[in-house]
Amino acid sequence: MKEPCFDLSHLGHIELLTDKFEESLEFFTNVYGMTESGRDEASSYLRGWDDYEFHSLKLTRSDTTGIGHIAYRASSPSALERRIAAIEKLGFGGGWTSGDEGHPPAYRFRSPDKHEFEIYFDTRLYEAPSEERPALKNLAQRYHGRGAAVRRIDHLNLLASDMPAFRDFMVEALGSRITEQIVMDSGKLAGCWFTVNNKTYDLACTEDHTGARGRFHHVTYAVDQREDVLRAADIFLENNVFIETGPHKHAIQGTFFLYAYEPAGNRVEIANAGARLILAPDWKTVTWTEADRAKGQAWGLKTIESFHTHGTPPVPDSKARGLGG
Amino acid sequence: MKEPCFDLSHLGHIELLTDKFEESLEFFTNVYGMTESGRDEASSYLRGWDDYEFHSLKLTRSDTTGIGHIAYRASSPSALERRIAAIEKLGFGGGWTSGDEGHPPAYRFRSPDKHEFEIYFDTRLYEAPSEERPALKNLAQRYHGRGAAVRRIDHLNLLASDMPAFRDFMVEALGSRITEQIVMDSGKLAGCWFTVNNKTYDLACTEDHTGARGRFHHVTYAVDQREDVLRAADIFLENNVFIETGPHKHAIQGTFFLYAYEPAGNRVEIANAGARLILAPDWKTVTWTEADRAKGQAWGLKTIESFHTHGTPPVPDSKARGLGG
Amino acid sequence: MKEPCFDLSHLGHIELLTDKFEESLEFFTNVYGMTESGRDEASSYLRGWDDYEFHSLKLTRSDTTGIGHIAYRASSPSALERRIAAIEKLGFGGGWTSGDEGHPPAYRFRSPDKHEFEIYFDTRLYEAPSEERPALKNLAQRYHGRGAAVRRIDHLNLLASDMPAFRDFMVEALGSRITEQIVMDSGKLAGCWFTVNNKTYDLACTEDHTGARGRFHHVTYAVDQREDVLRAADIFLENNVFIETGPHKHAIQGTFFLYAYEPAGNRVEIANAGARLILAPDWKTVTWTEADRAKGQAWGLKTIESFHTHGTPPVPDSKARGLGG
Amino acid sequence: MKEPCFDLSHLGHIELLTDKFEESLEFFTNVYGMTESGRDEASSYLRGWDDYEFHSLKLTRSDTTGIGHIAYRASSPSALERRIAAIEKLGFGGGWTSGDEGHPPAYRFRSPDKHEFEIYFDTRLYEAPSEERPALKNLAQRYHGRGAAVRRIDHLNLLASDMPAFRDFMVEALGSRITEQIVMDSGKLAGCWFTVNNKTYDLACTEDHTGARGRFHHVTYAVDQREDVLRAADIFLENNVFIETGPHKHAIQGTFFLYAYEPAGNRVEIANAGARLILAPDWKTVTWTEADRAKGQAWGLKTIESFHTHGTPPVPDSKARGLGG
Repeated sequence: MKEPCFDLSHLGHIELLTDKFEESLEFFTNVYGMTESGRDEASSYLRGWDDYEFHSLKLTRSDTTGIGHIAYRASSPSALERRIAAIEKLGFGGGWTSGDEGHPPAYRFRSPDKHEFEIYFDTRLYEAPSEERPALKNLAQRYHGRGAAVRRIDHLNLLASDMPAFRDFMVEALGSRITEQIVMDSGKLAGCWFTVNNKTYDLACTEDHTGARGRFHHVTYAVDQREDVLRAADIFLENNVFIETGPHKHAIQGTFFLYAYEPAGNRVEIANAGARLILAPDWKTVTWTEADRAKGQAWGLKTIESFHTHGTPPVPDSKARGLGG
Repeated sequence: MKEPCFDLSHLGHIELLTDKFEESLEFFTNVYGMTESGRDEASSYLRGWDDYEFHSLKLTRSDTTGIGHIAYRASSPSALERRIAAIEKLGFGGGWTSGDEGHPPAYRFRSPDKHEFEIYFDTRLYEAPSEERPALKNLAQRYHGRGAAVRRIDHLNLLASDMPAFRDFMVEALGSRITEQIVMDSGKLAGCWFTVNNKTYDLACTEDHTGARGRFHHVTYAVDQREDVLRAADIFLENNVFIETGPHKHAIQGTFFLYAYEPAGNRVEIANAGARLILAPDWKTVTWTEADRAKGQAWGLKTIESFHTHGTPPVPDSKARGLGG
Repeated sequence: MKEPCFDLSHLGHIELLTDKFEESLEFFTNVYGMTESGRDEASSYLRGWDDYEFHSLKLTRSDTTGIGHIAYRASSPSALERRIAAIEKLGFGGGWTSGDEGHPPAYRFRSPDKHEFEIYFDTRLYEAPSEERPALKNLAQRYHGRGAAVRRIDHLNLLASDMPAFRDFMVEALGSRITEQIVMDSGKLAGCWFTVNNKTYDLACTEDHTGARGRFHHVTYAVDQREDVLRAADIFLENNVFIETGPHKHAIQGTFFLYAYEPAGNRVEIANAGARLILAPDWKTVTWTEADRAKGQAWGLKTIESFHTHGTPPVPDSKARGLGG
Repeated sequence: MKEPCFDLSHLGHIELLTDKFEESLEFFTNVYGMTESGRDEASSYLRGWDDYEFHSLKLTRSDTTGIGHIAYRASSPSALERRIAAIEKLGFGGGWTSGDEGHPPAYRFRSPDKHEFEIYFDTRLYEAPSEERPALKNLAQRYHGRGAAVRRIDHLNLLASDMPAFRDFMVEALGSRITEQIVMDSGKLAGCWFTVNNKTYDLACTEDHTGARGRFHHVTYAVDQREDVLRAADIFLENNVFIETGPHKHAIQGTFFLYAYEPAGNRVEIANAGARLILAPDWKTVTWTEADRAKGQAWGLKTIESFHTHGTPPVPDSKARGLGG
């Protein structure tokens, strides 16, 4: 048995690009229910009400959509050093950022599919201003109850043109475990769910059929109860947010989910995992077959076509074979 | 910063003593909703429907009640060796058991308060017989929906006569982190919540005012939703199970809880943590004061007196100052 | 304003035909979670745990499937007489049954589509045997928690070849109010929801595109919470029950629903209405258009094709234009 | 059997007095989650998001607290006439109001305990302004999700010095049914739950031990799910609203409840009844004894002392024997 790796402690934040900054910001604060903890010229720094760091979502003005970068926090300064050494040895090595409002310099590198990743240990904790101070001192911020009131960042889903290369990167560069995967009858890897801790996944990756690289599928925030997901559906409905599919329960990972598009077209999810955790240190990857997938989601809902085709940024029509923004 | 310790992966199981074996077993299987995966002369091996190991509760015939032993699973064989070395160096060292139905030999040792602990890596996985096979392959067992249908072991609560000694044992021998604690105005430590992973706690300890040693306060199983806790209350009510307090929400750890006594008098809890996890590698212990505790539970419910006085096994009256079975 | 009619107090029970009696009975008792309160040669008498009458579902052995009869309880003996007089005046008049295990003689008559209806006042109350006696005296039976544990009959849905005739029958013969309806752009009435009390509907009717008469679409039992509907989905999944669609929220009536087929093919629903009631004595019928319906269910789920085609008993292929069993 | 009376269709609204108008209004709109549909010099007209009338709560500036009046809507103009005739025959007769923002003139009269009641048929429907228009046309207003977002008025609780007189008034003057009651071992009536429709109660009355007359105990709004009640508890906690007791489940009526005080001291409740309705036209009053009440609420919570002593307006100390504001 290979020793489990604990160098990275958790997914810290992602940077999301939007070409409709104001509309996106309005959505993330008043409908999705996040709190803005800071702003600079290009970006708004947002967080779920119980995210303990300054931000978990950096929303950045851009002429396009999709992912800016993905950041994981290391377990300690020395764990950070070990990861950097591993990454450099694998040839993915990048360099240090100058930091931003959310944290000091981080070590930046790229996946084989050219998604930007960074890892860091030193961070900026969220300090609640008086009006956001919680009644209970073990919470990062008060439960404000605004919009869908998402609690904390949960995971993200990327698209990759070369799945096996991306998988190996996650395992070797980040030290992630593969908790579940989809393997086609042809032997082709179609989807992969990764984690660095006891969450059942913090990053998922599915194949980008367009051949485009570095694209984004969705980001997910966790709420405490399935009822919060159902409530979010009504809030989306009343606020003219496009609901793509759900609420329903995934067969893979068992997550109770709801998918919607924020105004610029990036897909967002609200999810609840119940009490499910991966506690086994020797968890054996669960493999789903084509026959399994043909059954649809847990209770039989067929996976909606756009789930296989919509990613950001959109892909020019000539390139997309049924796949795009 | 001290490096976080990842040697132990999770609380594996506890052994609970009962002097009403048949009634206790009936309660744990048909009302609490566990599944019996094995039996030997002295004990029944029980599990929540998604516990991945053979058992998480060993229910043992006895002439008394209380805790038999507490078991944690190590992250790897070498992590197990590191823990044993640390324990022996601290002078808590014990020796190897002969194993039982649930797992091969484990390393046994005692807390300063004489609670029996064991750690192990090699284990016996639960293999679902055909009638218990789940529809979804990422679950350990089918969701049977029987009784309160608890999902997995969550944590236990012990009583200790010497709290600082017990706390140091947990930190140094097990490598646990202290996520929350109660410190009285006098500076006395009244309660402590520990974890070895991302769960907010897997073991809690509060002071035993009787001066007795090695006693048990309660064991808790997790359900997926708060609604499952409410439903359990109705099931307890209809099955003449004594409900001590709840459902309500703890201020400490924010757990939504329900306490009851199984037929032999051991306290059991059903709980839901929502999406709350300790992801920060440098989580700073949250300290609750006497003034905080005077506010009662999260929504104001006063902590019921028996919560401070009822532990198992019961303490002879002459010894108990308002505290006993 | 027409005076509201209060002659009928509520939907009392339905009789459902099955050509797989044992499998259907096993489903209704152990999976759907009803209690059998009696049995005669041809039928089992079943009830939700808080139905106050002896039965709300009479399950009858047959060589086919579909509806036997639909029964409403009158508000008083004189209200029953008024209804009989109205029915006879309308020319729907039938006669008295000999009664059965569930109640004394009832007045039987037929809808224009030849569905059998009956109305009655004298009834047989459920008297819980000792093992089913509830802990709280305001409940009809203990909450047993078995299977989906449905609480009480809620409504049924019929198919009719002549919708306007059926609608007029409901209004004039039963004194029902029309709370919601679907009217096509052509002016054709496609669906109608009726109630005799404060429930938002106790009977719905949609057009039978096959031209067959007297067919059945589904029967629905109520549970207390949406979480109970989600839990039922897992119970159906683990018991190999075919889930047709849901859980999701209807746009019409706002009901949170789950549809499945019992073993003989009759469709059953589990539903939760939240706190929604029709309290206004002058409630104005809500009319849904083709454009409204094109939006799908409340959160966008497209109505599944079989919902428009599957009714019981099945229709011979030559007759069914895309519609059948 | 006495014929059931259907003259009154439902509780329409109450008028609540406050000596802290601005604070009370802030609470009812932003924390309790109501919508203000109108305002005049003395009062704000408020409603739950699915109340179909212009208002269900008239909040009126005053130098004290407690109830202004209680209003029921009749089932038809002739039903209104029948009720007025009955009331006048009983000697409770009053006269017509001049109407207000919420509805045209109503017929006003007083209970034996001097609570002001009114009945009316003609009313003002709520017409949602464009920003409050719901996505689904069968709702009165959009689900805004603000604060506890109560859906509709459910019931109120009054205190009466002479319980039998008040009970007879409710039955004879309003035509209410008594669904549940508390009768002491001495034969004294201690509490009574009334309804005019299928709701299990729309008005409750308990004895005022101070001997004061015409006092108010609480008003209750309904939410769709028990989860909404739990969520309200967090919202109250974060907004410094005094939670008196709950969330828990009543034994009587089975309601899932949460009690709090609005800033002026009037008690408010948020409740969920699940799928429970009184459908039986001949429902037999459920009687709870002293022994039943000693068991506490459904899951064992002891009824909090202030529940027996706090009413509005407060009673001068000399008068109150352990009872007051």
